[in-house]
Amino acid sequence: MAAVVAATRWWQLLLVLSAAGMGASGAPQPPNILLLLMDDMGWGDLGVYGEPSRETPNLDRMAAEGLLFPNFYSANPLCSPSRAALLTGRLPIRNGFYTTNAHARNAYTPQEIVGGIPDSEQLLPELLKKAGYVSKIVGKWHLGHRPQFHPLKHGFDEWFGSPNCHFGPYDNKARPNIPVYRDWEMVGRYYEEFPINLKTGEANLTQIYLQEALDFIKRQARHHPFFLYWAVDATHAPVYASKPFLGTSQRGRYGDAVREIDDSIGKILELLQDLHVADNTFVFFTSDNGAALISAPEQGGSNGPFLCGKQTTFEGGMREPALAWWPGHVTAGQVSHQLGSIMDLFTTSLALAGLTPPSDRAIDGLNLLPTLLQGRLMDRPIFYYRGDTLMAATLGQHKAHFWTWTNSWENFRQNVSGVTTHNLEDHTKLPLIFHLGRDPGERFPLSFASAEYQEALSRITSVVQQHQEALVPAQPQLNVCNWAVMNWAPPGCEKLGKCLTPPESIPKKCLWSH
Amino acid sequence: MAAVVAATRWWQLLLVLSAAGMGASGAPQPPNILLLLMDDMGWGDLGVYGEPSRETPNLDRMAAEGLLFPNFYSANPLCSPSRAALLTGRLPIRNGFYTTNAHARNAYTPQEIVGGIPDSEQLLPELLKKAGYVSKIVGKWHLGHRPQFHPLKHGFDEWFGSPNCHFGPYDNKARPNIPVYRDWEMVGRYYEEFPINLKTGEANLTQIYLQEALDFIKRQARHHPFFLYWAVDATHAPVYASKPFLGTSQRGRYGDAVREIDDSIGKILELLQDLHVADNTFVFFTSDNGAALISAPEQGGSNGPFLCGKQTTFEGGMREPALAWWPGHVTAGQVSHQLGSIMDLFTTSLALAGLTPPSDRAIDGLNLLPTLLQGRLMDRPIFYYRGDTLMAATLGQHKAHFWTWTNSWENFRQNVSGVTTHNLEDHTKLPLIFHLGRDPGERFPLSFASAEYQEALSRITSVVQQHQEALVPAQPQLNVCNWAVMNWAPPGCEKLGKCLTPPESIPKKCLWSH
Repeated sequence: MAAVVAATRWWQLLLVLSAAGMGASGAPQPPNILLLLMDDMGWGDLGVYGEPSRETPNLDRMAAEGLLFPNFYSANPLCSPSRAALLTGRLPIRNGFYTTNAHARNAYTPQEIVGGIPDSEQLLPELLKKAGYVSKIVGKWHLGHRPQFHPLKHGFDEWFGSPNCHFGPYDNKARPNIPVYRDWEMVGRYYEEFPINLKTGEANLTQIYLQEALDFIKRQARHHPFFLYWAVDATHAPVYASKPFLGTSQRGRYGDAVREIDDSIGKILELLQDLHVADNTFVFFTSDNGAALISAPEQGGSNGPFLCGKQTTFEGGMREPALAWWPGHVTAGQVSHQLGSIMDLFTTSLALAGLTPPSDRAIDGLNLLPTLLQGRLMDRPIFYYRGDTLMAATLGQHKAHFWTWTNSWENFRQNVSGVTTHNLEDHTKLPLIFHLGRDPGERFPLSFASAEYQEALSRITSVVQQHQEALVPAQPQLNVCNWAVMNWAPPGCEKLGKCLTPPESIPKKCLWSH
Repeated sequence: MAAVVAATRWWQLLLVLSAAGMGASGAPQPPNILLLLMDDMGWGDLGVYGEPSRETPNLDRMAAEGLLFPNFYSANPLCSPSRAALLTGRLPIRNGFYTTNAHARNAYTPQEIVGGIPDSEQLLPELLKKAGYVSKIVGKWHLGHRPQFHPLKHGFDEWFGSPNCHFGPYDNKARPNIPVYRDWEMVGRYYEEFPINLKTGEANLTQIYLQEALDFIKRQARHHPFFLYWAVDATHAPVYASKPFLGTSQRGRYGDAVREIDDSIGKILELLQDLHVADNTFVFFTSDNGAALISAPEQGGSNGPFLCGKQTTFEGGMREPALAWWPGHVTAGQVSHQLGSIMDLFTTSLALAGLTPPSDRAIDGLNLLPTLLQGRLMDRPIFYYRGDTLMAATLGQHKAHFWTWTNSWENFRQNVSGVTTHNLEDHTKLPLIFHLGRDPGERFPLSFASAEYQEALSRITSVVQQHQEALVPAQPQLNVCNWAVMNWAPPGCEKLGKCLTPPESIPKKCLWSH
């Protein structure tokens, strides 16, 4: 055995360790893990994914030096559920990040949300501790902002960033500005200590997030293995960039934000190489959901050739750019057609650490190491949910839509006759089925009478039935709202003289309009 | 001067020669020129342009080893006019490849067309002769099939291919099958000696065209400089591939055709390297118009994020994949945002040969060598015509539509409200203007009241006025049709026993339905 191990490469050892469930004890130090999670960035936003302005040289180089997934999916078309799924390896319906206030409704964590990530969920950084990892989150948390949901209560050792989206500015009377935390305490608020100029689009936040990442990597690189979750949000409306990047993109302000993030990622990868830890650091880049064609039509990104975007379960809503980079382990210049999911980052990260996922619960994420390191393809479905409802499922090249919803009439710009629908439409009796290889843009539903339709339907139905029979939905976390729980007086507010007085507590059902 | 020349690279010498108009005499042998022209292939059909199945490894490598243009345009949204423009360096309205039978109508060269490329036009191979080039066309000619339009009468030394599209099969009574020529004589007909199985999609034509290219390159590589125009048509409906490629693509039959072409181009580039002539061969890849979303919706390619396709003057109709490859001269891994045109291949090829374009006529093509070799960007407009009508113009990032037409109602699948139109719509008084950087998909017309609109309109109007004032339209070649001129008895038919009797000559106006 020793001879075999000596003859194998580090990743093969990892596979052995992982398969044997041996953990990291006695083994060489497991690799650092760096997840670069984008906000509302679409599949089509990178040069290497066909964005015509081609303004992402660093990400394009990362792809050329690593592995590109053209078929990688988020777990939800909206930010909070997708992020909860990444960190738990579980679908939002299992981890509580959904609503039952209405049928098939998207929901997230605005300031007035009462719920958040339940204590019963085991988050990636919590588990990585067992293998000696030190973890930091930089940027947007979005799994609840009340004290019990704080990231440092869920396994992270450090945090610089914010619990909610950078919406605002608010007047601090009807609604407070979102706090920015360093670890346990608020160190300021957006639009106050951390300005975002809505008129010019100027904000230094990406530079601050970059510095936080570089500092953490420099501190950790020589000690324990680290897990860095870099969740920047400059591409979420209101889109922002720092002065040196403003006005530099052919794509307008959204492109300025992308360019600044691309530049920052270039600097992060460069630091890993300068510190000689690149070959011991697994880096993965992806996004939380598709480009925001409805909510930010003129400040949103691109979903390339795919239909619709954020909030929908068409490909534009959940198919994401995804790049893996690990010099010396992941062979350069690969493309893998493995159907991947953001939830796989949970299981794959555990495998990298020599850990196995919790066995007392359903885990939806796969260990992608066989794909990343040996080019293997694994059969697996992709489930597309909105709230409590399974809207669609993909198996192999076929995707079946059981329910469709495109957008509200008001925000509507693009229509595909017979496919896009403005109301929630029930196809459960006769799903719309597309072949995503021949028709990635979901324009030509298969004929119901065709043998291909029947065969695909029968395969997908069987997988969906299995999924639904075994499914135990969690208590929904996104049902109750209350203005009293907003970020009126986060810890640290006293030192800043920024404690606000919450209004009377009146819990009520959250209203999710679509 | 001699010292300067000795110290410069070959391309610098070329620029000097070209600028001085010295021609090739006494200079080292000019580079071979290889134009790879695709048929109905869209901007989004290559992996490197974002096609999700990423099945073009050879073209993607060609891009990585060369220069990629994301902003390259055909000269027309239809095949014949686009090809006439390539070989003359002139807009179809100048070289006669248009119709005046109706306003703003597309036209091409079906079997019954009476017209073709006028003798007064000077074609690229005709001009390259002056610099000692030997020229071959492999594949689709499409500039007229009557004797006076034969490619060997217009400068080519060799031809293997066909004068028209591979439509059919016909019954040889009402309409003959299209002939396939070797040089001056027909050597068979599609669906007869050159079978295309419409049911299975099987045809060996791409393999034959590949062999023709390889043979020509091998024969010419050590002698005179060569010009090879490789105009394959497997991606034009009815789409075909040879047996080893059928069923191998995730994208269906269209993808099979693309894979076979990609594989062939890989073999061609490999041969150039094996023969040690790669650094003396300028290779350019592009397509004649966008993917055929209307005429071949389920056998067509992808226009990526762009709106509409072939037949239209939205970006999907005329924006093309474009790659330049010339090892040792064109630096690897570049992207150029130069607005390029298929007509530039005329002028650039002449410059490579040390020739200047004819000075007695308007030439629309630019010499792209400063872009290719020195990274320079040149201001220039792109004009989008349908027939006799200037539909749109792009200058910098702004595109103004003076007329719009999307498609017929019957073939309609995709709609952008306020932009797509089923009838020819007149915007000449108040053009629709898009910013193609922020909005490559042409979804958000600029507000008519905005300063940006006013500024863009004024710049574009001035360039359009200049263009229109100087424009001398040619005699239209695509007005008259006559069943008697079809390919009944092409030269060589006697040897094959395949001469057919033409019907009575009845010239009439061609009917162009949209």
